[in-house]
Amino acid sequence: MPVNLVPVDHNQLKPIAGVRLGTARAGIRKPGRRDILVIELESGSAIAGVFTTNRFCAAPVLVCRENLELGDIRYLVVNTGCANAGTGQEGLADAHATCDELARLTDVHSQQVLPFSTGVIMERLPMDKLLAGLAGALADLPNGTWGEAAEAIMTTDTQSKAYSVNARVANSTISVTGIAKGAGMIHPNMATMLGYIATDAAITPGVLKSLVKEVADASFNRITVDGDTSTNDSFMVIATGKAGHAMINSERDPAYAELRAALIQVALPLAHAIIRDGEGATKFITVQVEGGKNIEECLKVGKAIAHSPLVKTAFFASDPNLGRILAAIGYAGIPDLDVAQVRLSLGDVLVSEHGGRAASYREEDGQRVMKEAEIVVKVELGRGSSSTSVWTCDFSYDYVKINADYRS
Amino acid sequence: MPVNLVPVDHNQLKPIAGVRLGTARAGIRKPGRRDILVIELESGSAIAGVFTTNRFCAAPVLVCRENLELGDIRYLVVNTGCANAGTGQEGLADAHATCDELARLTDVHSQQVLPFSTGVIMERLPMDKLLAGLAGALADLPNGTWGEAAEAIMTTDTQSKAYSVNARVANSTISVTGIAKGAGMIHPNMATMLGYIATDAAITPGVLKSLVKEVADASFNRITVDGDTSTNDSFMVIATGKAGHAMINSERDPAYAELRAALIQVALPLAHAIIRDGEGATKFITVQVEGGKNIEECLKVGKAIAHSPLVKTAFFASDPNLGRILAAIGYAGIPDLDVAQVRLSLGDVLVSEHGGRAASYREEDGQRVMKEAEIVVKVELGRGSSSTSVWTCDFSYDYVKINADYRS
Repeated sequence: MPVNLVPVDHNQLKPIAGVRLGTARAGIRKPGRRDILVIELESGSAIAGVFTTNRFCAAPVLVCRENLELGDIRYLVVNTGCANAGTGQEGLADAHATCDELARLTDVHSQQVLPFSTGVIMERLPMDKLLAGLAGALADLPNGTWGEAAEAIMTTDTQSKAYSVNARVANSTISVTGIAKGAGMIHPNMATMLGYIATDAAITPGVLKSLVKEVADASFNRITVDGDTSTNDSFMVIATGKAGHAMINSERDPAYAELRAALIQVALPLAHAIIRDGEGATKFITVQVEGGKNIEECLKVGKAIAHSPLVKTAFFASDPNLGRILAAIGYAGIPDLDVAQVRLSLGDVLVSEHGGRAASYREEDGQRVMKEAEIVVKVELGRGSSSTSVWTCDFSYDYVKINADYRS
Repeated sequence: MPVNLVPVDHNQLKPIAGVRLGTARAGIRKPGRRDILVIELESGSAIAGVFTTNRFCAAPVLVCRENLELGDIRYLVVNTGCANAGTGQEGLADAHATCDELARLTDVHSQQVLPFSTGVIMERLPMDKLLAGLAGALADLPNGTWGEAAEAIMTTDTQSKAYSVNARVANSTISVTGIAKGAGMIHPNMATMLGYIATDAAITPGVLKSLVKEVADASFNRITVDGDTSTNDSFMVIATGKAGHAMINSERDPAYAELRAALIQVALPLAHAIIRDGEGATKFITVQVEGGKNIEECLKVGKAIAHSPLVKTAFFASDPNLGRILAAIGYAGIPDLDVAQVRLSLGDVLVSEHGGRAASYREEDGQRVMKEAEIVVKVELGRGSSSTSVWTCDFSYDYVKINADYRS
């Protein structure tokens, strides 16, 4: 059961001028569900993305990186059910064949198509079904919605993930709409996730490339379910330029910061939705690390806590076994950490200071916070003024069940 | 249920001349169980150890490090049930008070005592019970056995762990006997573990210090249950010198290598026993990494596989979801890894080569290997001639259950 994950309000999802969406039910893994999504961009749109750092990255990731270099992207095609990763030269040929077929049907060049896949690793794509499904997805372009698009990219997600805002950028009102999928193999840089955000803001492709990294670092790269970095993670931002404001062509343009804020306003709820729907999650945990010498060491501490199976099972059990959090801080990799300066709080309860249990701490207070579905762990390192947050979920029986049964 | 963990054969455990053992039931956490162990060394014994790298290391670890510097250690005192970690200045005072009391009872200096604790973190030691128990443990010294000692240091271990060999060192027959405890928060450098090995071999304290590091690196630092580095890990080697051979006083002495081999002969089965008894373990997994440029990168790959919750749940399910292993290799942190050169085998079955599924691979072959309780994962990196092994277990419902319930 997802943790306080509000179902997508389809009426809230704003269409983005210059973007059309089409889905199809191709039976790639399971019959009858939407499993192909095609995103069509008007010519002249900017697009940029960040991808998994996994060396065994999926074939479609390789093709995306190549085609993005050439620019003028017109179509994105996403399939769920099969990740096309660990599939060698044949997998690469399959990803190319997907682009070829979509290009043939839409009369663009194959290099103007970006392919994406998610699902089981090390199995070949069922190319007959996939290619047969493309025409259906294209036929759906006049009617397709962001809500359907969000459904078409789900794997073990229990709910679809989509979010939309309006914002002011360069004195114009722009729209930003995004979709994402989780829900396991979620880890910063990147999560096993696909994320697509589109906006009608106007920005040059080169500047969008910097922006997408900043947005990912503030959202999808701050979440972790299980510490596994997937082979397929991709996060793309599309900017169609239809909002009509002056083109953003520099990181120093004040509108750049405005657009960044607007994109993060969509990316962060999507990232949080992935955690709320983390495999087997029963708690949504914010790890807030303050007082570091720099953001990197705050991140180390945040991730050590967020990755620890012992910490995560204690959260599942609502057991204020807070020593496990101290242990994680201790092994996070800050060699000169003075543990006597560290303060640890759980919600509003100070748990530990001076290297031990806080004098004021009472077990029942810790217990009260641990029973909540939304928990804030605050670590004050007492070394400086940097801070950051990481989001994770607990580790339950169901995580094991879902991942033990995933392929069956 | 532990995986093929043979119960300790108490008759097989060789006494070590110069070492006496005493245990007591002090009711530190649970009534009626042995929970204190005192190890007495004859004057002139050498002792050296390696300890956790966790910054929140337990109070007894701090005291051990201090006292070891001074040398001439005569007693080790171990309690289970409470780790005395995350206990600040009070915890440090408790560890000192434990040494003080044992020193008073045995008429040695407090600095000649090394204290060790294992159990729940961030709770104070029940000093009244602990101190009251010391006299009982001392009274037991004439009769205490290695088998009882192994039982006295268990926490969530389902079986005690002890092992013993004879070996030839410097043309003499020596004895080596060791005990260890696991069973969660197990991670290289070091496991949540306590390990004590004693031998009657003769070696200078300075040279023993190098030797204990080498032995740990070949055994306890190659195992992982959950990737959590505990606050209390300690591994000690005692050498009483009673075997009567010429003192080993250099790493270049051929007897040094003989003694190292003998110690590893005991340390490795103890390390494996910790994995076989890993919390919730149903499979014993050897990750063998070959063809690396150096041992460090082999270790990175081995640990990435051994730590992955997704890989470990797949092993639990006997599901040859081998793409998860490829993904772990891919994110292990070898930036220039050429995945086309990587070969992955499961037992005798070649699973992957040329970046994808091996042409010869059949799912039923993978399934057959995955169903076994002892599984060898072999990764050939194709980059060089270094190799190493890492041992781990699978990740089951029971891991979650044990760690969710641990304090209750």
